[in-house]
Amino acid sequence: MHSLKLEKNLPAFDRTMEAAARARLDQLTKPQGSLARLEDIAAWLCGWQKTLKPRTENAHTLIFAGNHGVVKQGVSAYPSEVTAQMVGNFAAGGAAINQLCKAIPSHLRVISLSLENPTQDFTQGPAMSAEECAAAFQAGMDAVPEDADILVLGEMGIGNTTAAAACAHAVAGGNPENWVGAGTGVNPEALRHKREVVGKAVQLHQGNYGDALSVLQHVGGRELAALAGAVWRARELSIPVILDGYVVTAAAAALVLFAPDALDHCIAGHVSAEPGHRRLLEWLGMKPVLDLGMRLGEASGAQVALAVVRASVAAFTHMATFEEAMVANKG
Amino acid sequence: MHSLKLEKNLPAFDRTMEAAARARLDQLTKPQGSLARLEDIAAWLCGWQKTLKPRTENAHTLIFAGNHGVVKQGVSAYPSEVTAQMVGNFAAGGAAINQLCKAIPSHLRVISLSLENPTQDFTQGPAMSAEECAAAFQAGMDAVPEDADILVLGEMGIGNTTAAAACAHAVAGGNPENWVGAGTGVNPEALRHKREVVGKAVQLHQGNYGDALSVLQHVGGRELAALAGAVWRARELSIPVILDGYVVTAAAAALVLFAPDALDHCIAGHVSAEPGHRRLLEWLGMKPVLDLGMRLGEASGAQVALAVVRASVAAFTHMATFEEAMVANKG
Repeated sequence: MHSLKLEKNLPAFDRTMEAAARARLDQLTKPQGSLARLEDIAAWLCGWQKTLKPRTENAHTLIFAGNHGVVKQGVSAYPSEVTAQMVGNFAAGGAAINQLCKAIPSHLRVISLSLENPTQDFTQGPAMSAEECAAAFQAGMDAVPEDADILVLGEMGIGNTTAAAACAHAVAGGNPENWVGAGTGVNPEALRHKREVVGKAVQLHQGNYGDALSVLQHVGGRELAALAGAVWRARELSIPVILDGYVVTAAAAALVLFAPDALDHCIAGHVSAEPGHRRLLEWLGMKPVLDLGMRLGEASGAQVALAVVRASVAAFTHMATFEEAMVANKG
Repeated sequence: MHSLKLEKNLPAFDRTMEAAARARLDQLTKPQGSLARLEDIAAWLCGWQKTLKPRTENAHTLIFAGNHGVVKQGVSAYPSEVTAQMVGNFAAGGAAINQLCKAIPSHLRVISLSLENPTQDFTQGPAMSAEECAAAFQAGMDAVPEDADILVLGEMGIGNTTAAAACAHAVAGGNPENWVGAGTGVNPEALRHKREVVGKAVQLHQGNYGDALSVLQHVGGRELAALAGAVWRARELSIPVILDGYVVTAAAAALVLFAPDALDHCIAGHVSAEPGHRRLLEWLGMKPVLDLGMRLGEASGAQVALAVVRASVAAFTHMATFEEAMVANKG
């Protein structure tokens, strides 16, 4: 894999720029630290963009879509056809993410990954061949615009919370109960079944969780591999990333197997209603920007978080300093 | 008081319109309920605005500013002069809220309430006379534009987290430790002192907490009374309100003494870093939209929440239904 060769050259966070950003924040007309997470976000952007003029205007929202053989096991309330139907809805401008990308401006692009060719049922064998997984990863890398200021990542794929749960379980350990939730809405009996399916799959592929691509190949899916590729490519380009929900986070989490700091350029846009997502964020040490109970996917939570990121940039960039405003600082 | 006579005529939430909004939400191309809080916010707006076309374009952000005699007790890290200096900063466009009102468009207006004439030190006697309190309440009512789609309420006032803590303590009971936090940043010793001050004040005026105005008069402040007036007037006009932090919430909470449903048209924009704010929101049964650790005041947290409200409206208003998009609904 191209990406895996680049490990030693991964751009690092610019701590000097971060410190300069913090120094500016401490001069702005507010009690020190009182904008809290908004200050952290501004300093994070400055450190990754290596500037005291952080930019978010050229935002790109990428949605990767894939289909999953594991739906044969009855893990989703919706049929696989809905993935392509929703991709059609994205193209027609009717989905939630279309409205959110207008309200919180961002370029929206949807990348379908062989929807007519679902992955294999990973309770029976690997979801993909190594080549298929590498191709999906590469498709994710290729989708990242080099000039993006910030990337918002989302997904669509009937059955993919099952794949996300399997990846999270494979990467972070524990047991299926920790990682399997109701997804788009299965009933309690179906939830028990979904847990069995995930437990069985993760056990079946034991011994293949040594690296990111192998996890994604065995118990992931095409859109998950592509998401990991997009996160990786954004890092190569030093582009900050807002992760959406459980599926995006699980895909990204696999990268941590390869490089513990692989997600330092990412923030969690929100924590979804899937309990496994909260657990996985804790495992990753990531604090979500929003906690609104959302569980739609398609980048919707991350897109709303972009509004918070922009608010942060607005305050950081345009507030007056105590000196400029002739306001007395803390005595 | 004019406002208190209007109790019986308080506009009620339109449950029929809410139900119609929920019915529409269930037809949109997403699993039912998957936008969670965004759906709740849309239904809340529809119910108060009595329409299935909720509007937030004509948003008004009001900041009420006041000064506090209790600062003589050494409860704030900043001198009282900073209130007027910050009002100057608002006018010059240099404060956080100026940038946030540009990034998340809203008409900003700052109403100064006799800054040159601080309230009395409420450890010695009532903060204000009944007439002064009523005038401040009326100033808050008068500041609400009748044609506002939505109101965002904030405040500025050195010493006013002490007044907020005293009001919360008077309204919701408990003890000073429950309600007193560090405000804009006092040290541990000063925090202990602030707790003593609040405990002493609340005890001194015991017996005067039977109604909203009396609480605000004895242990509140001018901007708190005005905030309560603005909340009340918005209710008369059926205008939805986004409350900011501890001070705004404490002022609004006093109204609950008068009418238990007085805040049904309000949402908590965020929960601040002041522990008393979280406790007070729990006491009120309000779930904050954002939890970003912010503690600046000046409507900053509520203003960021307006972006979430707008995202909610965008999804509600413009998403396609399953039928329109020819997407299969749950089988």
